[in-house]
Amino acid sequence: MRITTVGLDADDTLWHNETIFRLTQDRFRSLMAPHADAPVLEAKLAEVERRNLRLYGYGVKGFTLSMIETAMELTGNEAPGRLIAELLAAGREMLSHPVEPLPGVVEALADLSETYRLVLITKGDLLHQEQKLAASGLGDLFAAVEIVSEKDASTYARVFERHGTGAAEAVMAGNSLRSDVLPPLDAGCWAAHIPYEITWAHELADTPEGHPRLAELPSISVLPSWVRSLA
Amino acid sequence: MRITTVGLDADDTLWHNETIFRLTQDRFRSLMAPHADAPVLEAKLAEVERRNLRLYGYGVKGFTLSMIETAMELTGNEAPGRLIAELLAAGREMLSHPVEPLPGVVEALADLSETYRLVLITKGDLLHQEQKLAASGLGDLFAAVEIVSEKDASTYARVFERHGTGAAEAVMAGNSLRSDVLPPLDAGCWAAHIPYEITWAHELADTPEGHPRLAELPSISVLPSWVRSLA
Repeated sequence: MRITTVGLDADDTLWHNETIFRLTQDRFRSLMAPHADAPVLEAKLAEVERRNLRLYGYGVKGFTLSMIETAMELTGNEAPGRLIAELLAAGREMLSHPVEPLPGVVEALADLSETYRLVLITKGDLLHQEQKLAASGLGDLFAAVEIVSEKDASTYARVFERHGTGAAEAVMAGNSLRSDVLPPLDAGCWAAHIPYEITWAHELADTPEGHPRLAELPSISVLPSWVRSLA
Repeated sequence: MRITTVGLDADDTLWHNETIFRLTQDRFRSLMAPHADAPVLEAKLAEVERRNLRLYGYGVKGFTLSMIETAMELTGNEAPGRLIAELLAAGREMLSHPVEPLPGVVEALADLSETYRLVLITKGDLLHQEQKLAASGLGDLFAAVEIVSEKDASTYARVFERHGTGAAEAVMAGNSLRSDVLPPLDAGCWAAHIPYEITWAHELADTPEGHPRLAELPSISVLPSWVRSLA
């Protein structure tokens, strides 16, 4: 059994789900509204980031530069000054208020990233999730980021096809059975369930006991040794 | 004898003096000419960089963000789009064309930076020198950068007063006897002369034989052990 790729959920797996930055997707959209519709804005930001990834990585400063570049491109180089100033301020805010990874996350991801391609797979809005990733300082450990609208089996199949060597050689890890565990198992992945401190009763009821490709892990700290044990 | 601070010359000490980026100080000045005179531009860029240093460090991405912020502030948030686009392109160019440090420089500076405060002290224009520092990848090893107009004894006294604990507890290292060695010795510093491969005859003539605070070093690789031997 060869494992090449490890997918990770974001909120409540890598960090608490509470951090809010002042620059929201809604605010970015409304500032850009005279120049681009929301879907165009989001697609352009993703395109610019992909293009700059090799140079910028997934850190705060590169993300800020990509937001500015997106604004310039969508306005034909006529972005309102207020917007540029606000993007610069958002970058400084992210750097000043880092997102604290949950215990053991930094060490586990640093360890895994030496051997496996790490892919962040999360729902939520692009801007907010990327702000958190950048502000967590974990960005440079990831080979790719996928902000998806649904976490179903076909999503995982597609993501691990694009960023890895297919679902059968991928592990997905996250805190939600419904989103991070059952659909990847359906897609043919391995899956690690790492419960967040609060686990809901209806979630527990769904646990697929004894699935051959599933592990229940008490902490992300043991994820690297479990992934290696699959080899 | 306590040493707290090590000053380093830039061109021909840390890297060859040939790298040219497309965004020159003249170009930046002419783009900004409708909004600020050259001295105002330079002072504002230095001010913005100082303010952002703790957040951005001395890397390419932070430098690019500081250039954009400078442009926004000097234009009352009305920077021409062409300028912002050009600053973004300059950042990408610096990242794509790194400045290669001379042999042994990375290791020597990494070693020294664990114990001493490193200060880059160089003449030349602010934009060009900072582009080279950022593109060299050495920026994060430096606690401060001083682009000076004259390298005389009073300059070194002032710089080591501001960024260290005074000239008597500082070492200056560089390739030029006239600029990097004799004036700091006059100011009361220790000095290491690390000749570049081409050394001019009139420079050699000036060597102050047997000065108690001077070392002639064959390579920057031996600078850390010499500095430690002063303790």
